[in-house]
Amino acid sequence: MRKDVRKGDMVGAGKTYRLGRIFGRDGRTMVLPVDHGLMLGRISGLEDPVAMTRSAIEAGCDGLLMSAGLVRATAEFFAERTSPARLLTVDTLFWDDQDAATAASSVVASIRTAARLGVDAVKLLMAWDFPAVQRTATAARIARVVEEADRWEIPVMVEPVTLRETSRERAAELTVDAARIATELGADILKVAYPGKPELLAALVAESRLPVVILGGPRVSTIADLVEVVDEALGAGASGIVIGRQVWQRPPAERAAVMRALVELVHGRVSAAAALEGLASVA
Amino acid sequence: MRKDVRKGDMVGAGKTYRLGRIFGRDGRTMVLPVDHGLMLGRISGLEDPVAMTRSAIEAGCDGLLMSAGLVRATAEFFAERTSPARLLTVDTLFWDDQDAATAASSVVASIRTAARLGVDAVKLLMAWDFPAVQRTATAARIARVVEEADRWEIPVMVEPVTLRETSRERAAELTVDAARIATELGADILKVAYPGKPELLAALVAESRLPVVILGGPRVSTIADLVEVVDEALGAGASGIVIGRQVWQRPPAERAAVMRALVELVHGRVSAAAALEGLASVA
Amino acid sequence: MRKDVRKGDMVGAGKTYRLGRIFGRDGRTMVLPVDHGLMLGRISGLEDPVAMTRSAIEAGCDGLLMSAGLVRATAEFFAERTSPARLLTVDTLFWDDQDAATAASSVVASIRTAARLGVDAVKLLMAWDFPAVQRTATAARIARVVEEADRWEIPVMVEPVTLRETSRERAAELTVDAARIATELGADILKVAYPGKPELLAALVAESRLPVVILGGPRVSTIADLVEVVDEALGAGASGIVIGRQVWQRPPAERAAVMRALVELVHGRVSAAAALEGLASVA
Amino acid sequence: MRKDVRKGDMVGAGKTYRLGRIFGRDGRTMVLPVDHGLMLGRISGLEDPVAMTRSAIEAGCDGLLMSAGLVRATAEFFAERTSPARLLTVDTLFWDDQDAATAASSVVASIRTAARLGVDAVKLLMAWDFPAVQRTATAARIARVVEEADRWEIPVMVEPVTLRETSRERAAELTVDAARIATELGADILKVAYPGKPELLAALVAESRLPVVILGGPRVSTIADLVEVVDEALGAGASGIVIGRQVWQRPPAERAAVMRALVELVHGRVSAAAALEGLASVA
Amino acid sequence: MRKDVRKGDMVGAGKTYRLGRIFGRDGRTMVLPVDHGLMLGRISGLEDPVAMTRSAIEAGCDGLLMSAGLVRATAEFFAERTSPARLLTVDTLFWDDQDAATAASSVVASIRTAARLGVDAVKLLMAWDFPAVQRTATAARIARVVEEADRWEIPVMVEPVTLRETSRERAAELTVDAARIATELGADILKVAYPGKPELLAALVAESRLPVVILGGPRVSTIADLVEVVDEALGAGASGIVIGRQVWQRPPAERAAVMRALVELVHGRVSAAAALEGLASVA
Repeated sequence: MRKDVRKGDMVGAGKTYRLGRIFGRDGRTMVLPVDHGLMLGRISGLEDPVAMTRSAIEAGCDGLLMSAGLVRATAEFFAERTSPARLLTVDTLFWDDQDAATAASSVVASIRTAARLGVDAVKLLMAWDFPAVQRTATAARIARVVEEADRWEIPVMVEPVTLRETSRERAAELTVDAARIATELGADILKVAYPGKPELLAALVAESRLPVVILGGPRVSTIADLVEVVDEALGAGASGIVIGRQVWQRPPAERAAVMRALVELVHGRVSAAAALEGLASVA
Repeated sequence: MRKDVRKGDMVGAGKTYRLGRIFGRDGRTMVLPVDHGLMLGRISGLEDPVAMTRSAIEAGCDGLLMSAGLVRATAEFFAERTSPARLLTVDTLFWDDQDAATAASSVVASIRTAARLGVDAVKLLMAWDFPAVQRTATAARIARVVEEADRWEIPVMVEPVTLRETSRERAAELTVDAARIATELGADILKVAYPGKPELLAALVAESRLPVVILGGPRVSTIADLVEVVDEALGAGASGIVIGRQVWQRPPAERAAVMRALVELVHGRVSAAAALEGLASVA
Repeated sequence: MRKDVRKGDMVGAGKTYRLGRIFGRDGRTMVLPVDHGLMLGRISGLEDPVAMTRSAIEAGCDGLLMSAGLVRATAEFFAERTSPARLLTVDTLFWDDQDAATAASSVVASIRTAARLGVDAVKLLMAWDFPAVQRTATAARIARVVEEADRWEIPVMVEPVTLRETSRERAAELTVDAARIATELGADILKVAYPGKPELLAALVAESRLPVVILGGPRVSTIADLVEVVDEALGAGASGIVIGRQVWQRPPAERAAVMRALVELVHGRVSAAAALEGLASVA
Repeated sequence: MRKDVRKGDMVGAGKTYRLGRIFGRDGRTMVLPVDHGLMLGRISGLEDPVAMTRSAIEAGCDGLLMSAGLVRATAEFFAERTSPARLLTVDTLFWDDQDAATAASSVVASIRTAARLGVDAVKLLMAWDFPAVQRTATAARIARVVEEADRWEIPVMVEPVTLRETSRERAAELTVDAARIATELGADILKVAYPGKPELLAALVAESRLPVVILGGPRVSTIADLVEVVDEALGAGASGIVIGRQVWQRPPAERAAVMRALVELVHGRVSAAAALEGLASVA
Repeated sequence: MRKDVRKGDMVGAGKTYRLGRIFGRDGRTMVLPVDHGLMLGRISGLEDPVAMTRSAIEAGCDGLLMSAGLVRATAEFFAERTSPARLLTVDTLFWDDQDAATAASSVVASIRTAARLGVDAVKLLMAWDFPAVQRTATAARIARVVEEADRWEIPVMVEPVTLRETSRERAAELTVDAARIATELGADILKVAYPGKPELLAALVAESRLPVVILGGPRVSTIADLVEVVDEALGAGASGIVIGRQVWQRPPAERAAVMRALVELVHGRVSAAAALEGLASVA
């Protein structure tokens, strides 16, 4: 049963097929994001995204979030019926010295490229603690991609985030507002930071009627913290995770085991306690 | 008789059909707007727009004003011949700290999307107490949508408003000027705040020769105030109302009754006094 | 429950909305076709299609099958939320002296016209007892319309028929083959002559997984015959009827009563016996 | 190792991905064609293509060859990462009384539809024992589809066949000529009848440098004949089979076992002798 | 004789037809502009532009300058062979507190709209006492409209003006420069303020070889002043007038008489003295 992935189920054959490649029959997915280079350059832990992609496939991840360049470079890895889904990041954002006024975003891959490459979804950032002119441009950008993607029946994942806000409470509020706007714009999947409180996530899941996946973010936490957050988010209704840095910024020896443990946890095949115990030897 | 809705009757078959789905044979309509999330995020009282849409249908509203995402999510509710009309909000506006200089607007849904979804009209905001560069961009945006909508025979509702002006008199003046510009640009329906004086509304109705519907705005008034304003506006020639926050920001227990009372009042099936009396038990 | 209308339910919000306007919550529809003039000119009984359309609305028909010209001429009748659905016939066929070799078909209304007029579906003929070159052109024509209609989320009704075949058995066989080809081409609704045997219709319904509606054809039968065929077809799984000549080629005094009786019968609100009894006084 | 599927490997990321979904790592594929309804109507054994598609998935087939209507109707079955590949038949052909002079072909699904639905390849017929005017139209039709498909990186399977030729030798010659023309036109995969002699197939494989798959055709042979032909073709270099009628025109009880046996045989996991032995109990 | 309207006569059939609908056989025209609402909102004297349009038709004006919304609202008035010409204003301009730096202009109606509505010309403003960046944008805007209008053979009227300049001499100079630039850009008709000196206007007429019409502007003058200016302008070669506020900002009782007098004067059927005498009783 996957009826919770898209409550209304009013999507055509193309979206049905693609959403089903991302989310399992249990409605859950564990996606490893390896698209960070597009915004952050040669980020630590992801110096070699092609190699990391291969590891993720071997570890049984359900999907990879990638740039167009990486999709091209790794096409052969995915040229197989049992391979993970691929989600294409289609925008980027740069700013100077973390100064919001300087931030600028743009689409860098078209829906046609997505269709040509055969990916299963596209992903857009929705940075919401930014000036109004940028928020408006972002809403318009998402709307244009949603409209074009709809024509090709390619699902759109939108990622409402705050990048500067230091108050956790205010960040959660902004995220929830942005997630609501993304829903009204026609997003198919929401990717958000865990808002801290299960009831806030549960409300987002219930009110948006969309699959919500949890991102990891830059803060390196302990394995125990990570497992706890994921477990809590799943309990509150999350449809899965899209966590990268918390995985591949760990020591190389731990990565594969952490990926495998998260896959098991997401699909409810192990409890959080058992997952942690299993990781005790590596982390 | 609906001859007052579009005095000239010089519209094609598609607009005739769609306008007739919005306005009853008495030329009146009671539309519940639930599109606020597009601009305001998770606004209080409208946390779950899907559920609110269902309530509005049950209460007998004539139409719903919605975002594209919400239209998609609720299509099944409207998949019936007796369902209310749907009006699609196609733009959004954001600003920082209520500072006009920072405001930015954009179209976020195309006329093609409107035609594909099968909605009966599109709606655009026309914020008029803003700098000239924004007013010009807004006029141009409305003109482009009007032109494209004309090709598809989809009616365009324009909403001339002031968002900052504190003087009621100056706000009414600006609204009337903007409404006139919207008329010249080719709007099919005007949505305005009740300008306070019946003769001003009567002049707008007479001079524009368009159906004029009254918005509610953010101020929470008493039920008595609300009913009085609606009654006065209808008396002055308004073709109906598009009032949201004044309805769904009331206690949940009151909402349905208020909706039903407004439907009756708008269609002249009860007097204002009787409507108020009927609401005495709930509000 | 309307789950039998589109078994897979894998249609978008636009098709969901439009199919729901054609078929009731019981999955059934009674459509009066008044599009015959497009192919047959001033056909007896339908000399005034505008007047007949008005009668059909008054009699409570669920939908009308019409040409673009008639849709334009009657737009005002449908400019109301409770009005019947409208299905637009988008092709025509002419031939000389019933000589198949001379037959020629063409699309005469585009999907854009359908979208502009706001109709709920389009309809194409699929005459199958014709030379291969014509069958191929017909398949290609249907395929093109299906593809364009899909982009606008407008359902396509295809009508597989034989126009020359005199053997009832062979006609039924050809119809079933053509219906299968229409299904493979992506039709949303099938309109066929009742194939005579309930089990053949039941197989078509089961195998196509599409709503199948029954046409009437030119032969004038008795009211009893008509009611029997409709009842048998509904029993075998038909989703409704699209019967014109059998209705409006009767004496004017009978027409409205026959329409009303068929509406009741189709929606299962009266038995065939009761319907006949009710018609005893008029026919 | 799949290096023999596409010798030069000079294809883009999209084709690499899609070809890899059709052919296994061993370069082999067992595709069940269920697209016959598009040309032949309600053909015996394939009355219910949706049910047959489900059986094929359960039996472990590598791919299905389907019409656009069937792809839409079965999207939910394939909405899973381990599901078989889907190849879309994009043309049809009709003729009267097997008279070549009356034959007419047309494209009935576009590459855009293929991209939207997310299929892995498209398939075109290339009937070559037909008049020159038809062969030229067919070559032009294939060329147009190849050009458009290339833009979307969707592989094109071309099926050179004879439909009337009674001499086996002449049929094989015509097929080999047509296969060569298809190769020159830019086909990615060839689908041909086994030409009888291993050396002729081996030459086609060697010279075209394309994956060649073997079709079954209408003649019902014994299981032993079928297994022998498949085994011989694989031995001569075939990359797999696309055999339908020989499978699903058998008694229902045998079908699943025959599918499973052919999958095993194609992938070299059983010998022909063992496959036959395993089938002894069902056929 | 209208040979002076377009000296070269090198215009296509479409423009010949349309220019002939604006200018009489005597090469003269009296156009009443009622498009002010597009820029100025509910301007005094023109509160009801529909009613004013009807008055202008009754008074025998040769043409009306209107917005697209007004053209739509009054189409029925013009649905007759002897009705006045219609010129469509296709741009608007807003600024804050008369501060040139804040001014922004945009096209608000396309040439397609002009063609669809069947108007006889389009009109653009060319405000020339504005910063260079705005002058450049204006020149580019005019050029784009001219190019598109040429394709549809719709004449373009350009209105070079100063909106801030207080020196009459400098204003006249700027106007003449702008008029020359408009001529070079391909304008078909020039609309300018009377530059004060007959010889300056005569030079503009002679050098541009275009019909030049005189605007009225905001200053309310006496009837005598108005008649004198018009008479002098006609004497210097003007092809007519496009004067609005000087007409409809007069007391309602005077308007019709003033219009009729100006029509007579423009077409040389009365002298200036006789025109004034005739108006003595109303003004």
